[in-house]
Amino acid sequence: MERAALDRWGKGDVNGYLEIDATDVTYFDPTLEKRIDGLAAFTKYVTPFAGKIGIGSYAMIDPKVQQYGDVAVLTYNLLDKVNKTPDGPANIKMRWNCTDVYARVNGDWKIVHNHWSYTKAVSEPRR
Amino acid sequence: MERAALDRWGKGDVNGYLEIDATDVTYFDPTLEKRIDGLAAFTKYVTPFAGKIGIGSYAMIDPKVQQYGDVAVLTYNLLDKVNKTPDGPANIKMRWNCTDVYARVNGDWKIVHNHWSYTKAVSEPRR
Repeated sequence: MERAALDRWGKGDVNGYLEIDATDVTYFDPTLEKRIDGLAAFTKYVTPFAGKIGIGSYAMIDPKVQQYGDVAVLTYNLLDKVNKTPDGPANIKMRWNCTDVYARVNGDWKIVHNHWSYTKAVSEPRR
Repeated sequence: MERAALDRWGKGDVNGYLEIDATDVTYFDPTLEKRIDGLAAFTKYVTPFAGKIGIGSYAMIDPKVQQYGDVAVLTYNLLDKVNKTPDGPANIKMRWNCTDVYARVNGDWKIVHNHWSYTKAVSEPRR
């Protein structure tokens, strides 16, 4: 599920993640001032990225699943070769820490929490 | 549990977290090259920080718990007023995104995954 969503994301298709997010999904990424709560808010946030992302290839490094009944915590490091960002063409590598918490809701696994951060990040100066 | 662990952490006591971490805890923070797996490895990582951290005060912003049976996903933004870091005295504010996944293990809630990242982080230049 995660790889399928990543594959679609890398082609600029944000619906791969949206389709497997739970209604109550919570979300962190490094560009945000604070957490995003709920699928409606998350949809509003990612929809403008559609078609503006291009990932040439990625490596999912050491994916690990910790399962506790109907909840599974997926964690991995991601190495992206980025060809296009919402700001325009790019030729960069990006390294990420990723947490995805999946829960089985009415028989279907859905993402209830997703946390993306930069590997070896630097804190932005406090304003 | 989280506030008690944060209080102790802010006084340089790393055992507050260690005592509530599960054996299979996984951990991300922005200084690491990759995920840390397991309590033994995490203990080895944080033990040198003992006595070298001083948090004057902190604000736990919008803590949210998503509970699914015996698993609870706690997320919040944290604003720290830092007086001392492992590198020495400091007078800085730090902003964090925090994910803590708790699971009930043999009747006790334990942290099975913890992800810390900087709010509004900057990616370190790729080497």
